[in-house]
Amino acid sequence: MRSDLRIVVLALVTGLAFSAQALAQTDPLPSWNDGNAKQAIVEFVTATTTEGGKDFVVPADRIATFDQDGTTWVSHPVYGQAIFALDRLHEMAPEHPEWKDTEPYKTVLTGDKAAMAKFTEKDWMEIVAVTHAGMSTAEFEKIVADWLPKSENPVFKKPVTDLVYRPMIEVMEYLRANGFRTYIVTGGGQEFVRVYSEKVYGIPVEQVVGSSIVTKYQEKNGVPVLERDPKAFFIDDGPGKAVGINLFIGKRPLIAFGNSDGDREMLEWTTAGDGARLGLLVLHDDGKRELAYGPAKGLPDTKVGTFSQSLYDEAQKKGWVVISMKNDWKRIFAFEE
Amino acid sequence: MRSDLRIVVLALVTGLAFSAQALAQTDPLPSWNDGNAKQAIVEFVTATTTEGGKDFVVPADRIATFDQDGTTWVSHPVYGQAIFALDRLHEMAPEHPEWKDTEPYKTVLTGDKAAMAKFTEKDWMEIVAVTHAGMSTAEFEKIVADWLPKSENPVFKKPVTDLVYRPMIEVMEYLRANGFRTYIVTGGGQEFVRVYSEKVYGIPVEQVVGSSIVTKYQEKNGVPVLERDPKAFFIDDGPGKAVGINLFIGKRPLIAFGNSDGDREMLEWTTAGDGARLGLLVLHDDGKRELAYGPAKGLPDTKVGTFSQSLYDEAQKKGWVVISMKNDWKRIFAFEE
Repeated sequence: MRSDLRIVVLALVTGLAFSAQALAQTDPLPSWNDGNAKQAIVEFVTATTTEGGKDFVVPADRIATFDQDGTTWVSHPVYGQAIFALDRLHEMAPEHPEWKDTEPYKTVLTGDKAAMAKFTEKDWMEIVAVTHAGMSTAEFEKIVADWLPKSENPVFKKPVTDLVYRPMIEVMEYLRANGFRTYIVTGGGQEFVRVYSEKVYGIPVEQVVGSSIVTKYQEKNGVPVLERDPKAFFIDDGPGKAVGINLFIGKRPLIAFGNSDGDREMLEWTTAGDGARLGLLVLHDDGKRELAYGPAKGLPDTKVGTFSQSLYDEAQKKGWVVISMKNDWKRIFAFEE
Repeated sequence: MRSDLRIVVLALVTGLAFSAQALAQTDPLPSWNDGNAKQAIVEFVTATTTEGGKDFVVPADRIATFDQDGTTWVSHPVYGQAIFALDRLHEMAPEHPEWKDTEPYKTVLTGDKAAMAKFTEKDWMEIVAVTHAGMSTAEFEKIVADWLPKSENPVFKKPVTDLVYRPMIEVMEYLRANGFRTYIVTGGGQEFVRVYSEKVYGIPVEQVVGSSIVTKYQEKNGVPVLERDPKAFFIDDGPGKAVGINLFIGKRPLIAFGNSDGDREMLEWTTAGDGARLGLLVLHDDGKRELAYGPAKGLPDTKVGTFSQSLYDEAQKKGWVVISMKNDWKRIFAFEE
């Protein structure tokens, strides 16, 4: 017995030693080029997780927040959820013959992209209301789940969930391996993102904070359901992101990732906290492998996911890290070699 | 070295054996009398956590929700948060000389309890608005934290946080030891409860779902703050509890604890889920050690935290467990012998 135990112990000890060595040799962020951004992330994680260090933070308070559109996945030519809404309109059209003569449906159904580009916020709200409400939360979840594998980004010709940025997945995994809890904090629909958050990001539904519409508790045939009403409840964008973080998480993030003016207040709120904090912004400056838009730094102004010069200037002033997709990311998508 | 290791291993092995034995002998719910309620809880936890069993649930989906007022702590003669609001009014009064002649402040300041018992919802809303808003979230947190140790329940003459039910703390610890995440789902203020949830319940702030008022992101002297506005944002009571659970947690609880008609929909929503689910209601039938009120089962109708006969009947019909404080709880408060 004793000699058996000795073997077990030796196996454990050598095994542990091997693992430690393997860990030390493994780059947690292999899709990142060495540079300021990667270094800032690794130094920040090291500083906040080194016991006894001046910037050490207990695991319970290690909160990391990620915007989604443009930060963790492609948001061009339109947001993934807009592709869903338009697909759904087409699918619903046979039951709504009146749409052929009613705007904004008519424009969507005729596929007039130039006219759609001129849609007002009111037009989009109407489309969202019709496609996202009037069903129960369970029904909506199923509709989104069924749509996802069939979805196609018109530029990349791939399902929207394939267009996730591999470097950001690595950061999420690296943070979680270091005791952080990772949250999505998106202007997009909370219930929409929850359908795939676990599978795509490894983020459980309760760590998805997003925009939401009113839901109403009802009994249908004796069974309680939550019915989705076509009325905005919470807009998790801009200042709403700081509000949403406080409302849903109740703790201030240590580190926050964004890419557009809608993430400004999330980064302000995050980095205004005590102790070590880090804000990062993805700059889409890689027209070859992904897309190039700003208008910061003279990049084209596409009006979707705007990264303004004033946001860029604030980042410089406040020490937020600007991630250059072109220079900082070795690999952008998982489907690349 | 080898013999040292052997000693370590032997210590580990015997230590583990001892712990296992100790665990088997330890009653996880020592403040509960043996009976239906205790048995239902233990059987439910065993069923949902036994791998290979038909009711097994993966840890990620083990969600337990607890109402607060009347379920985890005393809610008489008024809710703990109402005591806070009234204390705060008295504290603020010197800055508001006009209150001496203005209702509902006048009545509060004169201490006319009979008149206060007749306050309308509008009166209470006005008191809550004045005492809970007009400051930042950080300022509010400090005000509540400072008040808690000075607080006094007028019947029990103890701080409100001393009036937590020991049996419910044990259930929370027992559930967490079995991989459940425990949430407070309260009609009370989310930010109020978050001030003490970790200390009193071992529940982190992000697992507190409650009612909330509007907060606004603002810069004050260049520092971002969230300012509390005197306007209701979300009422987490009645049907709102099912809505709030979906909004904040996104998963349906396996087990839910309540005590009043405001918990009806939370229990309906919980127990309508697939697989093993359990709903439990605390009945305040112990006028000697705590309080006796219903009006279910002919108990006095105190109008605060009402447990109606119709809720009792629904519990019977749906197999929800009614916890009798008198019969099921051996010890109610931690300060008892």
